[in-house]
Amino acid sequence: MTIDDLLSLIQPPDHGLLEQAQRRLDRLTKPPGSLGRLEELAACYVMLTGKLMPNIPRAAVYTFAADHGIVQEGVSAYPIEVTAQMVLNFLRGGAGVNVLARHADAEVRVVDIGVAVEFPALPHLIRRKIAPGTKNFLHEPAMTREQAIRALEAGATLAQEAAREGIGLLGTGDMGIGNTTASAAIAALMTSEPVEAVTGRGTGIDDRRLSDKIRVIEAALAFHRPNPDDALDVLAKVGGFEIAGIAGLIVGGAAARIPVVLDGFISGAAALIAVGVAPACRDYLIASHRSVECGHGAVLKRLGLAPLLDLYLRLGEGTGACLGIGLVQAALKIYSQMATFDEAGVSERGTQC
Amino acid sequence: MTIDDLLSLIQPPDHGLLEQAQRRLDRLTKPPGSLGRLEELAACYVMLTGKLMPNIPRAAVYTFAADHGIVQEGVSAYPIEVTAQMVLNFLRGGAGVNVLARHADAEVRVVDIGVAVEFPALPHLIRRKIAPGTKNFLHEPAMTREQAIRALEAGATLAQEAAREGIGLLGTGDMGIGNTTASAAIAALMTSEPVEAVTGRGTGIDDRRLSDKIRVIEAALAFHRPNPDDALDVLAKVGGFEIAGIAGLIVGGAAARIPVVLDGFISGAAALIAVGVAPACRDYLIASHRSVECGHGAVLKRLGLAPLLDLYLRLGEGTGACLGIGLVQAALKIYSQMATFDEAGVSERGTQC
Repeated sequence: MTIDDLLSLIQPPDHGLLEQAQRRLDRLTKPPGSLGRLEELAACYVMLTGKLMPNIPRAAVYTFAADHGIVQEGVSAYPIEVTAQMVLNFLRGGAGVNVLARHADAEVRVVDIGVAVEFPALPHLIRRKIAPGTKNFLHEPAMTREQAIRALEAGATLAQEAAREGIGLLGTGDMGIGNTTASAAIAALMTSEPVEAVTGRGTGIDDRRLSDKIRVIEAALAFHRPNPDDALDVLAKVGGFEIAGIAGLIVGGAAARIPVVLDGFISGAAALIAVGVAPACRDYLIASHRSVECGHGAVLKRLGLAPLLDLYLRLGEGTGACLGIGLVQAALKIYSQMATFDEAGVSERGTQC
Repeated sequence: MTIDDLLSLIQPPDHGLLEQAQRRLDRLTKPPGSLGRLEELAACYVMLTGKLMPNIPRAAVYTFAADHGIVQEGVSAYPIEVTAQMVLNFLRGGAGVNVLARHADAEVRVVDIGVAVEFPALPHLIRRKIAPGTKNFLHEPAMTREQAIRALEAGATLAQEAAREGIGLLGTGDMGIGNTTASAAIAALMTSEPVEAVTGRGTGIDDRRLSDKIRVIEAALAFHRPNPDDALDVLAKVGGFEIAGIAGLIVGGAAARIPVVLDGFISGAAALIAVGVAPACRDYLIASHRSVECGHGAVLKRLGLAPLLDLYLRLGEGTGACLGIGLVQAALKIYSQMATFDEAGVSERGTQC
């Protein structure tokens, strides 16, 4: 299914359902609105999925892994091999995202969409490699426009397959040494913020390397002049394959009426691309947390999303998304498992106020 | 065991353990510190419990229920019967706290510490009634000093019993129509904020009733002149039995080296009492969330606690504590279940930065 096919599938949410869901929430044994954002999440899930009495959804976090040619410029604290090593760690269940996904009763699905290394046969690795890493975007486009489209479609197809399996909640995740550099470039372009305002320390670089990273991004943007009104142009010139995959997952999720819980800064950059390609998918996004990575605040603001958590996370992988999924599940349990005033024989509030 | 006995049991935390725990966290396959407050929670749990490789703790939320004579002044949106009706709802598993406790794999334990109604035999109800509700503190002390001590000791004993059962994490919860009024009186006294700055709408009163509520509290404080340096005096004159029970649970938890996850505003007021009685128990507190109830921010500031969540909750019962317990468990799973760099064969960061 092509991106154009998907775009036509994304439905605007039915606000009548939001009101119906809120009426149910107001019948539960609690003062109206007293569960705050949990109520909002539950009502929103009902509206987006069109299911007035939804089951607690099966959730899957897709962790897209890819490498970045831009690491040649010394923008990361970690060597490029770490991307592939972490893919193996994900598959063995030892990474942060695995632990937090098990905690949230979600599945982690690891996608090689552009890791530099050619992996041997590995059970459970989802192979969708577009190329063995991007090009160094200081000197040439990160990928071709055709590659960008293929990576988006790969992500979107995974979302469609998840929908057919009965997955009712998607989470996004990333692994890619160098990917905060690509994400900062996208964030600067799509939010109109200066590069230095959206470029952070990623895995933990020092001041000197941070100023180099800012200079590299500024030089790349000056060289390529990506068109912020053409998200595919931005993605191809300064993006990454995992960013494209996540953007595709968002578009595919929205087309299948599955809400998508965003992880941190990389997922935020991917969401800017997804919304650029398909503005209607914005409604299907839930921001799990605000990352420490400076720039994420501007990205969330541009997306119009209020994060659920602010726990000073900056690991990526989908770790924050797992915590967000736990809150969505909690919200839906409130919605479907709490007793109503009638069921419990509890008096409602007086009429005097 | 008396409160004085307990005070001598509360140990100052061992900061050496905090460092040892952080060293383990820094060996896990993630950039150091990149899981933010989850790392902080895990290290803190290790320090407080003295267990360098803790199990994922069994958690119990104690929901203390009591009635308030001050409701005669029309300070609440709900009739007083709701306290007892909600106790029955808790015991049947239909309330918000039940749903969120199941979600966090925690147990809810319901304590009648001062409900106005005499309950028939009810399985699972923990009977620790000190009196059938407090007196109307606009005209007389809410309880005697002796009752305040007995209620504190009842809560502390429950914590000690939980420790013997192997519970490793406590959550606090409250049910009591009128209890935001008592809590606002305590908060005003113990934070030195004006009454109107710490008095909110509770279950949802309108402007007129809110201004009545503020006037009632101001009048009561002027009448009793509780001594803020004597927490028992404050508790007896303007407190509540569930507030006393929670304060006792905190003191008992600290004495047993069990961290206590606080719920919202009522639990915060109780924590001010607990810390007044036993300053050393402050270290054992984890603030789950910041409530919508105005005044909670000042309480948390006074306690020196940064809430984990800000989800616009104001239900009480222990609902926020359940969500906080889920985060503590997630943190401890990170601590004990993630692979180290050596185990996973992942390269560490370069030496250049």
